[in-house]
Amino acid sequence: MRQLRHLLSAADLDRETAVALLDTAASMAATQEREMKKLPTLRGRTVVNLFFEDSTRTRISFETAAKRLSADVINFAAKGSSVSKGESLKDTALTLQAMGADAVVVRHQASGAPHRLAHAGWVESAVVNAGDGTHQHPTQALLDAFTIRQHLVGAGDAGVGKDLAGLHVAIVGDVLHSRVARSNVDLLGTLGARVTLVAPPTLLPVGVETWRCDASYHLDEVIAEGRPDAIMMLRVQRERMGSAGGAASDGAPTSRPTTGFFPSPLEYTRAYGLDARRVAMLPEHAIVMHPGPMNRGLEISADAADSPRAVITEQVSNGVAVRMAVLYHLLAGERGAQ
Amino acid sequence: MRQLRHLLSAADLDRETAVALLDTAASMAATQEREMKKLPTLRGRTVVNLFFEDSTRTRISFETAAKRLSADVINFAAKGSSVSKGESLKDTALTLQAMGADAVVVRHQASGAPHRLAHAGWVESAVVNAGDGTHQHPTQALLDAFTIRQHLVGAGDAGVGKDLAGLHVAIVGDVLHSRVARSNVDLLGTLGARVTLVAPPTLLPVGVETWRCDASYHLDEVIAEGRPDAIMMLRVQRERMGSAGGAASDGAPTSRPTTGFFPSPLEYTRAYGLDARRVAMLPEHAIVMHPGPMNRGLEISADAADSPRAVITEQVSNGVAVRMAVLYHLLAGERGAQ
Amino acid sequence: MRQLRHLLSAADLDRETAVALLDTAASMAATQEREMKKLPTLRGRTVVNLFFEDSTRTRISFETAAKRLSADVINFAAKGSSVSKGESLKDTALTLQAMGADAVVVRHQASGAPHRLAHAGWVESAVVNAGDGTHQHPTQALLDAFTIRQHLVGAGDAGVGKDLAGLHVAIVGDVLHSRVARSNVDLLGTLGARVTLVAPPTLLPVGVETWRCDASYHLDEVIAEGRPDAIMMLRVQRERMGSAGGAASDGAPTSRPTTGFFPSPLEYTRAYGLDARRVAMLPEHAIVMHPGPMNRGLEISADAADSPRAVITEQVSNGVAVRMAVLYHLLAGERGAQ
Repeated sequence: MRQLRHLLSAADLDRETAVALLDTAASMAATQEREMKKLPTLRGRTVVNLFFEDSTRTRISFETAAKRLSADVINFAAKGSSVSKGESLKDTALTLQAMGADAVVVRHQASGAPHRLAHAGWVESAVVNAGDGTHQHPTQALLDAFTIRQHLVGAGDAGVGKDLAGLHVAIVGDVLHSRVARSNVDLLGTLGARVTLVAPPTLLPVGVETWRCDASYHLDEVIAEGRPDAIMMLRVQRERMGSAGGAASDGAPTSRPTTGFFPSPLEYTRAYGLDARRVAMLPEHAIVMHPGPMNRGLEISADAADSPRAVITEQVSNGVAVRMAVLYHLLAGERGAQ
Repeated sequence: MRQLRHLLSAADLDRETAVALLDTAASMAATQEREMKKLPTLRGRTVVNLFFEDSTRTRISFETAAKRLSADVINFAAKGSSVSKGESLKDTALTLQAMGADAVVVRHQASGAPHRLAHAGWVESAVVNAGDGTHQHPTQALLDAFTIRQHLVGAGDAGVGKDLAGLHVAIVGDVLHSRVARSNVDLLGTLGARVTLVAPPTLLPVGVETWRCDASYHLDEVIAEGRPDAIMMLRVQRERMGSAGGAASDGAPTSRPTTGFFPSPLEYTRAYGLDARRVAMLPEHAIVMHPGPMNRGLEISADAADSPRAVITEQVSNGVAVRMAVLYHLLAGERGAQ
Repeated sequence: MRQLRHLLSAADLDRETAVALLDTAASMAATQEREMKKLPTLRGRTVVNLFFEDSTRTRISFETAAKRLSADVINFAAKGSSVSKGESLKDTALTLQAMGADAVVVRHQASGAPHRLAHAGWVESAVVNAGDGTHQHPTQALLDAFTIRQHLVGAGDAGVGKDLAGLHVAIVGDVLHSRVARSNVDLLGTLGARVTLVAPPTLLPVGVETWRCDASYHLDEVIAEGRPDAIMMLRVQRERMGSAGGAASDGAPTSRPTTGFFPSPLEYTRAYGLDARRVAMLPEHAIVMHPGPMNRGLEISADAADSPRAVITEQVSNGVAVRMAVLYHLLAGERGAQ
């Protein structure tokens, strides 16, 4: 596989590199079953979590992954920092580089910020995109692919060495605002799976017909006729719906109308929510996924979220294993290529 | 002793378990006198501080305790997290479980939240209640009992193996809003001490007559006639007095009236504050306690707080030792039972 | 050298101690070039970052320094803590002492707070002033001196053992609100350098004529005639200009007028900003410094900030090495005197 310098977009991963990352993640996941979950691999290395948007879940997943590999972790929340005194991304980057950050995990409200951080010549650190605007969230796509492979490919070996050829994944809901959807379309395609996006016309991006996937407005039809092996419910991002299609900041829940995107929560749920009836229509082996945090009762009902088909908490565990694998490939150098 | 799975309420501890915890805390306190304060005991374990209310003092006490035992610590402040995007306690819990948290230390504004976290089947992690609403704060009660035992029981051995039989403890002030008072009444009773609550009628909870303690409205009388061995001054929780008896959030000081609870700060201080005159009336061996943070000049005068009788900073040190003991009993398994 | 108990002010350092700190910092900087940047020196020690003002850059520099020496770090932001419930500095100090903090790194909006923390008898911990009001920021002065020595003294050995005798340093801009300027005037003087302050009359403090330095209103003149070996551009602290000369809190950028201090940003830049033209006027060996965060386009132009003369990111790296040296001298006892 290619030696990774950064992980900025799921689109940057070729099949071989993606499979190698998933294989390393499988080894990491195995270590997480032990009583002693900690490995000495990255002792003495410093990982900075540079978060311009709040995202406790993603931050603690990366923090846990880095600590399990014995790295030191520095949390840098942009709120209340020099950034709020007007410091540029460039100067923040130069500062982290100067302090000796080996990897910078960056979450930013602006699509493209991690790319700029990695390629402007400011830092030698490895840069990991932990979500940028409505653009990409590649470790989310990797953990989703890992979870799918573990359940639906291979037997007992979590599908090590294999891709997702022949599988069909439906991604349902607010595709327009979702970096999770974009990242998954890229990576699942690379790994050979077929993807169908399901959303109301207002929540599909312009130009989706050029993406490497199908699109539909009809969830029941996709379930009944498409027979998806995995169904991924997207979070309705009410907090991003303030400015149409824009990358609003990830703030507290607002009472902003979602008008314009869908008629009402009730109608959204009826047309695009996953409930027990729809779960029952899925193929028997199919799994139910959600990147979290869930709006229970909106895009997914409580019984669907808690059904035996749901692998939602496994996605969270796999998130730690996948992020360990990414940090390992980025920071453990040549040794990264198992 | 019984193997502890969680520590949710001081009322859950039987005499044997409570004494064993205090004995372990005594060993831990001894290690904290050394230059090298760190033990390898919990290396590789992850402790999550899940704080839905701000409480820097309690959080850093648990963080210090966990780090002294070589555990990894993840701080999860609910503000600005998925919780503020509407994530349920259940989904937060499932997330922490999936990330491999060995213990979750939880502070919550709602009484009962830690119990739910421990017993709803969401997590296998050990749960430690670090304060829930006006309900319980069991590690506070343990550190108070530890401090009392160290000063008033045994000679030179910090009272190891012994309980608090025969001692009299007065708890003074805002009992109504105090989880510290509730926890202490439970634990001190279990350990054989006699407790007298002293407060104005408006700051005693309805039903206090069913508690395992006496109650009085007259501080001078309790001091003169009750001859308490320890007097514990409660913080006047102005921030909780907004909604009568309710569990308001632990926010910044407000200008909300305390009307209805007591006539004025001045009158409160005159009737229920501890000052030099009252300290002088205490038995010579009696100790002065406060859980902190103090309102100097309200429930306790500066000279009382700084008098040689005051053991308030020892309470803080003992807090670290007690929390080390609790984490040790919860996470070091069978070995927990010395 | 004298054994350091605290580091409160650059004025407390005599020549021998300052040179010894810079020499230790040079050793520390050498370790930071290695792949394994971590030293076991302070394993088991606890460093508390007690920040009453937000300052992510300074906090993560100290956090990185402490972690590179294997200390445990506890971050205590005063916002949302007991402090906001009205706890006094004294009680906060007693709490940290009781928890066993070996060093307290304190940032406070009030000039003198670190001195009080160190000398009121509340704590035995070593206290490091990480910036107090408009008063002092001694580790900033040390890292500046280190950077100057490295570039302009000695050959290949970073000037180990030497001071800054014979060098001329110009410090330009908002001297009035700058603890960086005060600290540098003290330390550079002790180390034998000549200092010239350059600022408009409104941004020079009353009584500056008693300081151990020259002062001028004319930047071009100082550059052309003074031939400075190093020029240090100060940040225009718009956030401190709300109350004339006062120590306002370090908040988000405000739209408060800077009227009264200088006519307009444009005129400030013309008279006191460093741009390519002025960089070209400097002696060929001269270096350009800035403590960060920069207001690019105000006190320094982008091309000056990014010119080969600028050593601004080296200052950041040196900050970690200098803070490692300070923690080492304070906590590693006699062994501190190499």
